[in-house]
Order: sequence, then C-alpha cells, then structure tokens
Amino acid sequence: MNLCGKKLRTRANAKYDPPGLHHCFREAGHDGACAEFPYLDHLKEVAPRVAAKIVRDATKTTGASWKSEDAGPNRISRWTMLLSDADLAKLGVNMKALKPWVIAKLREKAASYDDCMSAAQYLTWSVYGMTGAPAPDDATRAFITSRFGEVVPGATGCLVCRAPLHFALFEEARRGKAEIETAHAMPRSHTAGNVGFAHRNCNIAQGDKSLDQFYEWIAGILTRAGRI
Amino acid sequence: MNLCGKKLRTRANAKYDPPGLHHCFREAGHDGACAEFPYLDHLKEVAPRVAAKIVRDATKTTGASWKSEDAGPNRISRWTMLLSDADLAKLGVNMKALKPWVIAKLREKAASYDDCMSAAQYLTWSVYGMTGAPAPDDATRAFITSRFGEVVPGATGCLVCRAPLHFALFEEARRGKAEIETAHAMPRSHTAGNVGFAHRNCNIAQGDKSLDQFYEWIAGILTRAGRI
Repeated sequence: MNLCGKKLRTRANAKYDPPGLHHCFREAGHDGACAEFPYLDHLKEVAPRVAAKIVRDATKTTGASWKSEDAGPNRISRWTMLLSDADLAKLGVNMKALKPWVIAKLREKAASYDDCMSAAQYLTWSVYGMTGAPAPDDATRAFITSRFGEVVPGATGCLVCRAPLHFALFEEARRGKAEIETAHAMPRSHTAGNVGFAHRNCNIAQGDKSLDQFYEWIAGILTRAGRI
Repeated sequence: MNLCGKKLRTRANAKYDPPGLHHCFREAGHDGACAEFPYLDHLKEVAPRVAAKIVRDATKTTGASWKSEDAGPNRISRWTMLLSDADLAKLGVNMKALKPWVIAKLREKAASYDDCMSAAQYLTWSVYGMTGAPAPDDATRAFITSRFGEVVPGATGCLVCRAPLHFALFEEARRGKAEIETAHAMPRSHTAGNVGFAHRNCNIAQGDKSLDQFYEWIAGILTRAGRI
C-alpha cells in the first residue's frame, strides 16, 4: 500500500514538534482528510482505551501513571528526547534540573518519529491477533495486513513469555496498573520489529535486560536451582 | 544455646504491642542487661545500615521508601497485622479506610513475633555467609551457629537466583532502591526457613509467586521461547 505522506499541520498538543514532522498515513490518493493514525479508527470506536494506549506507548516517553515530582516532563514525545540538552533548553525543557535516573529514563526512550509510527502500526496489528480481540473492519485490515501480513486471531503472544495474550487483559488492572504493557526485545530500540505487548509481570521480570539476556539469565537460575 | 527469654519492657516505638510481647534473646544466665537482638551488636558497629535493615525487614510490614498517601500505617509491626480489624480500630488503626490493595499488602506481611525473631536471626546468619562479609565476632558467631550451623563465607546465595550474594551490594542502590531485598520462598510465610536475601531484580521477577511457581513459570517461558 502506498501512503499519502502529506505533511500534517502540527497538533495543538505537540508543542515541542518542529513544523512538518507529522505525516498522513492514509493510502495514497485517499478521499477526505489526511490522518496520522487511520488504522486506529476502528479500535477508537470499539476499544478507545486500547487505541489511546497504542498511541501513547508508541509515541510518548512515559505513561499516565508516572506523575511523581521526579518524573520530569511527562508524556513528552519520544522524538523530542532525541534533541540535545541545548535544543531542549530552547524549548523550555531543562534537562539539567532532572535527577540522573530521570534523565536516563527519558533518554532511553528516545526514538525517531518514523520508528514511533511503525511501532504504533505494529502494535495495532498485534492487538488484532490477540485471543478474543475484535475483528478489524475492512479498511483497518487492508492497512495492517499490507504492513505486517495476515491477521491471525490467537497468534499474538506475549513478547516475553510467548504465551497467548488475551485482549480482555487490556481492561484488567491491579493496583492501578494495566495487565498489558508494551515491551521491547532490545530495551533501547523502539521499532516495529522490536516492540510487542507483554504481560505486566513478564515486562517487569525482563527489566532492563534484552530478551536474549533475560532468557540467558533465567536459564542460569534454573540451572543453579537444579531445575534443568 | 539456651536463651534468657525474660520479658522486655515494651519499647517506646512499639505503641501497638501488647505488654510482655518482647523477649530477651541473650544466652540464659547472661551478665548485664537483657537484649532482643544481641546477635546484631556486631553488625550495628561495622555495618549499621545492614543491622537496621535486618530488624526492619524481619519485623515491619513495609520499608522506609513506601511513603505514599495510599501506604497506610507505615512500618507497622508484622505481628500487629495479625490482629482483627476490630482490635486494630481500638489501637487507632482504621483498616477500613485503606484501599483494598493496601490492606492486602499489609495483611500478607502478617507474622507472629516468634517468626519475626527467627527470621531476623536467620537473615543475620545469612549475611555473614555472603561474599565479602565481615567475620562475626565470637559472641555473634556462637549465637548464630547455635541456631543455623557454621558460617561459611561465600555460601550465601540469592534466595531466588542462587548466585552468590555480595555483601557490598547492601551499599549499592539504583534510583533510591537497595540492590538487596528480603525475599520469601512462599510469599506469605515469614519464617527462618522461608526468608532469605535476594537481588532486587530477582525479588521483583519472582513477584507474588512462590519460588516453585517462579521456577515453573520461567521454565515454561524458556520452553515456549525454544531455549530448552
């Protein structure tokens, strides 16, 4: 599928974005208005919180729950964190005032606009492959299958534990934390090929390790515990 | 070793304790004053933060860092959480005002005074078995070996991953969290035979699972990931 690619007017909430950053992701030659996330229109209707989570996880450094005073600029775009301290200072973001671990947490989530867009598209495709997920409408299916192949219900596993992920988990939360989180095979690589949804417990267990490191680590545990 | 066992005057900071709860753990027939944690005297001199951590982890429901408004009564004794809501109300602790997950977090840490004392003794013994730990003085060695056997430097492993635990990790912290935590083989059983120190990441990965469940869980992950 060829995409329109027309530049979009910068949105009101994207105050740190340079002009012309956002693009249209509808099919080339489309009717009507341009749109950045046309493939989320269906989820916005049937599961709006899931659609919002995809945009947030794909494009923002931190989620809604991270509200402590130490948090720094919350919900800032991942691509903004690619800018230098000097350029950020011009935008009114004083990185030097933040604690080192807050800076690290923000900087490690930096990703280009294109990578964030591809991550959002991949996460959307993977949602429709979850057990119990709604079937996409025709327009959505056409878009996501053109990017990542057929949507197979039940095929989406947790990125970490590889067990099936149930769409209903999006609605479950314990102690205010959603049971599904966005995980990364390599913690600092935010691309379609590297992101995926995971059980919260699995994402927590993986921590800041890569998936390869995690699997090696738990294999070592089982060996030392005499289990394998 | 036979213990003195004489009842101690309730300490000023133990405002919820019934009279006569605290006992002396010095050897029977000892000279001088009674003491509840005589086996910690040495660590109090050479590593006071470690000694304080042992007392805190062994006897309190929550640690110092848990200071949010939702936290409920912080640093309350584990044995106090064995009391009924009605008895706690008489002591001025209104459990009904707390959020369900806070109540669960407090109640799941309930343990008897005797179990807490044995946990403190075991944790002390395990500290002296860590790589790089100071050697205990004679009095301390006599006490802890009489309870749990010889102290073998380097023999103490992480309860979860079984790799050696380094005493120096007590002084390390990331993002304000100590790198060593007290872990439980069975999450709700706070006894000498069930507690141990663990790497923070290991304790987090274990989560609310028992060690057996944790090992089964990660074995399943490795199987599904094609690693075993």
